Amino acid sequence: MGSSDANADTAARALLSADLRGVDSHGIARLSGYVRLWKAERVNANPSIKIVHETPSTAVVDGDKGLGLVVGPAAMQVAIDKAINVGTGWVSVKNSNHFGIAGFHAMMALQHDMIGIAMTNASATVAPTFSKERLLGTNPIAVTIPAGNEQPFVADFATTTAANGKLEVLQRKNMDAPHGWVQTKDGIPSTDVNELKKGGAMLPLGGDKEHGSHKGYMLGSIVDIFSAILSGANYGPWVPPFPAYLPMPENMPGEGIGHFFGAMRIDAFRPAAEFKQHMDAWIQRFKMAATAEGHERVIVPGEPEREIEKERMEHGIALLPSVTDELQQLATSFNITGPQPF
Amino acid sequence: MGSSDANADTAARALLSADLRGVDSHGIARLSGYVRLWKAERVNANPSIKIVHETPSTAVVDGDKGLGLVVGPAAMQVAIDKAINVGTGWVSVKNSNHFGIAGFHAMMALQHDMIGIAMTNASATVAPTFSKERLLGTNPIAVTIPAGNEQPFVADFATTTAANGKLEVLQRKNMDAPHGWVQTKDGIPSTDVNELKKGGAMLPLGGDKEHGSHKGYMLGSIVDIFSAILSGANYGPWVPPFPAYLPMPENMPGEGIGHFFGAMRIDAFRPAAEFKQHMDAWIQRFKMAATAEGHERVIVPGEPEREIEKERMEHGIALLPSVTDELQQLATSFNITGPQPF
Repeated sequence: MGSSDANADTAARALLSADLRGVDSHGIARLSGYVRLWKAERVNANPSIKIVHETPSTAVVDGDKGLGLVVGPAAMQVAIDKAINVGTGWVSVKNSNHFGIAGFHAMMALQHDMIGIAMTNASATVAPTFSKERLLGTNPIAVTIPAGNEQPFVADFATTTAANGKLEVLQRKNMDAPHGWVQTKDGIPSTDVNELKKGGAMLPLGGDKEHGSHKGYMLGSIVDIFSAILSGANYGPWVPPFPAYLPMPENMPGEGIGHFFGAMRIDAFRPAAEFKQHMDAWIQRFKMAATAEGHERVIVPGEPEREIEKERMEHGIALLPSVTDELQQLATSFNITGPQPF
Repeated sequence: MGSSDANADTAARALLSADLRGVDSHGIARLSGYVRLWKAERVNANPSIKIVHETPSTAVVDGDKGLGLVVGPAAMQVAIDKAINVGTGWVSVKNSNHFGIAGFHAMMALQHDMIGIAMTNASATVAPTFSKERLLGTNPIAVTIPAGNEQPFVADFATTTAANGKLEVLQRKNMDAPHGWVQTKDGIPSTDVNELKKGGAMLPLGGDKEHGSHKGYMLGSIVDIFSAILSGANYGPWVPPFPAYLPMPENMPGEGIGHFFGAMRIDAFRPAAEFKQHMDAWIQRFKMAATAEGHERVIVPGEPEREIEKERMEHGIALLPSVTDELQQLATSFNITGPQPF
């Protein structure tokens, strides 16, 4: 696509991180979709990523239509640099595209003994509580926190009951969705995993009002506002869709999609060694929690992905035939004739 | 209790704010509980609230065992002052007590054209996903965002399926709890509203794994770590209980309970007028969202509490007889012989 080596490398690392951690929906399987966005001239392969406004602890970054896989790490680095200087850094990003897994960006903070935060808005697939309209994306939040001898705390979650990838798994298996995941186009609760194709919507974390869906709706809204209204990106129903074949929304109020990043130096609050010692104690206490009947252990956020990563580093990443076929076709269309591992 | 006039005034405003906004469980009904904590020497009526560590954008505040109603506004003011200087301010607090409603503190930012954030940990009543142990509090998060012609966005929610106050309402009515709110002491899902008294636990937002309770568990954990491990307060199962008659946990790792506050100047990102214009557009779009069958309107976070506030400013706040009785007794025990409105 004409990306610089450095940008191609950054994007590849972001995709690989998703595949290694078991988030297959956000890994190399997305590559053909990114290429289609580039062909539709919605992605700029050589973005000139710029800070357009800043204070000692904040910045707005213009992604220049770059891939979020490349814009995200650049913006997160700005947050980290500001945290080095004044304790914390907070960066809102406009004019970007899909950025892969939120956790990849947030985890950049860990090597600096910082807490990392990453979030992004996304095209509208989620109905607010009491609505039948899709007004929010799955709008994920990632928070990573360093520990000492223990592995870091890594939370990375969509603000919906279930991420879209989980719906797709059920679609492939021809299974029903649990209650509280989706609703029909009229806003009636449903268990049909194909509801989105029929004009239905995903539901905010909680599922319905009685189970706190207004809280998931608030979380998704906060992600949308921090990512897009602070920066000047599109928000709500105006966020551009990921599939290149879908038309862009009319009367878009901003530029591209938006992200929000934060970095907090732990020693901006207390000595890092002290913090880590207590973080280790926290993690150890939760790991040894007594389990409810029928469960083997209590999980600390980040553990399952780390276990998959370890397994895949050893045995490799199994790709679906549909994905390897697409990669093969991409290689052909780009005249890539080097070693082909598939 | 010997508080200064200024501190008594601040605490009264915090309690009144809860009662006005319809959060009766966090208003004047708590006063007798605060007095009992003071009698048990767990609350210092004249705290010397101090910054013990800081950078240009961060601080740790020692609440000196003060009421959170007083410590919270002081710490939030530190966050606001730092935001004035460097764009954002982030303050973690140790050695504090119950701080009332999180929204009261976060809303302080609005008058400065800032986004406000407030959270607190609380004594453990919530079991992590897959556990039967109570390891987290209801750990609420409040986020307030200024708008222009529209009223501000005010989110304020416990990171559990339902706040404790909602369980108490059902207890008074002798009704069952919905599925996903509580579990038994063995970790089995239950609808018994009295489960907590029998060693059971409340459940994180989501209710069970299939409905995303691991996300509520992650949110509650983040609040605990930001509030207590950054500051040096107690965390997890070691957070002191609110009722003064309950024993303190053994081997406490920190001081008091912890809070976390944030303030972000909106013009640290883009001109305030631009931000507000888009925030108005966001709010208007969500207000006019098409409703699901059976629902009259889609709510923007903050609207219900504002409507109750308007009504109560006009017609007054109806207190339960049990609350007025307690206040009467307090007045007698403190030899308050002035005008008695009850």
